[in-house]
Amino acid sequence: MTDRDDYIRDGAAIYERSFAIIRAESNLSRFSDAESRIAVRMIHGCGMVEVADAIHFGGGFAAAGRAALLAGAPILCDSKMVAHGITRARLPANNEVICTLDAPETPALAKRIGNTRSAAALDLWGDRLRGAVVAIGNAPTALFHLLELLDAGAPMPAAVIGLPVGFVGAAESKEALRADGRLPYLIVEGRRGGSAMAVSAVNALASDAE
Amino acid sequence: MTDRDDYIRDGAAIYERSFAIIRAESNLSRFSDAESRIAVRMIHGCGMVEVADAIHFGGGFAAAGRAALLAGAPILCDSKMVAHGITRARLPANNEVICTLDAPETPALAKRIGNTRSAAALDLWGDRLRGAVVAIGNAPTALFHLLELLDAGAPMPAAVIGLPVGFVGAAESKEALRADGRLPYLIVEGRRGGSAMAVSAVNALASDAE
Repeated sequence: MTDRDDYIRDGAAIYERSFAIIRAESNLSRFSDAESRIAVRMIHGCGMVEVADAIHFGGGFAAAGRAALLAGAPILCDSKMVAHGITRARLPANNEVICTLDAPETPALAKRIGNTRSAAALDLWGDRLRGAVVAIGNAPTALFHLLELLDAGAPMPAAVIGLPVGFVGAAESKEALRADGRLPYLIVEGRRGGSAMAVSAVNALASDAE
Repeated sequence: MTDRDDYIRDGAAIYERSFAIIRAESNLSRFSDAESRIAVRMIHGCGMVEVADAIHFGGGFAAAGRAALLAGAPILCDSKMVAHGITRARLPANNEVICTLDAPETPALAKRIGNTRSAAALDLWGDRLRGAVVAIGNAPTALFHLLELLDAGAPMPAAVIGLPVGFVGAAESKEALRADGRLPYLIVEGRRGGSAMAVSAVNALASDAE
């Protein structure tokens, strides 16, 4: 039999073997148990054990994010891919998953504030920011704009998953989040990040079940 | 002014600068012009110029995929993240984007065929496979099962984006696609892949506009 015929078809067995490989190959020694679970899922989402070295937590992120979800906090997402990747069955309080990128007001708002649609969409989060889990997996401008909103007095979220990806502003926006000091955060240093890792982080926070 | 204050807020300028950085730093010499455009977008989606070395095209993928989309072919996706990431405004023929993962029949079908939901969902594609662009950005089992369906006489798609990600079966399923010989394909060797790169490839096929 070739690989093509005898591949593993059982979803639970695939997860179990994947997580065992990740734990065997990754350097997770910097992390608490709760952080390790998050890092393992992020590695699972991107297929790269070496990303462990670029993952950084601050401000008690794992505990703050978990407590917020248990308390029913909404999850505010910068992109539709993040919103649609979150496994609803894992959420502990049927938490609302919100993405305002396609709201009818967003394009005009973007023009008015002179920023991207991804950034402008955050202006529609309003009071839902208070105590929320924010998951940014696409746009550096969204993460920069989040910090601007907080500077201007917007309500504080409980935890921020800051994982914009790319070549212009991604690394800088994540360093700005880390330096900010007001917020429990999770980042991946540098250019890497993206919706898959952001979804993995939310799914890990949502449930202890691997 | 710090980075935090003077970040680029213009979406078009961000794209332009991003693609310039990618073209300056990536080794695209193995690729045709059409393949380069696809590779550049995939690199943009994952933030890693070094992934260029793992990207492989075969069977005239770029031309076959582009012609299929121009002719109105549907795009069949293994995951909701892929389906929701595709930029509808770039599609040349208002092409249908289909994901059957959440179809009511899928869980029972998975049980019956002894495979994952991601794989079983492909059984619902039916005749829509003929001439379609297939975009697999998540599940190795979906890519393996696609080849099984073709073995059993399913209609041939026009082109296959084979980018499952992860530690169990991802590398093997992509090698099986490359070795298959029946299909124009795009793969990333090894564990890397994912919905963001799959979406980037579709968005690149859909329009020449950078």
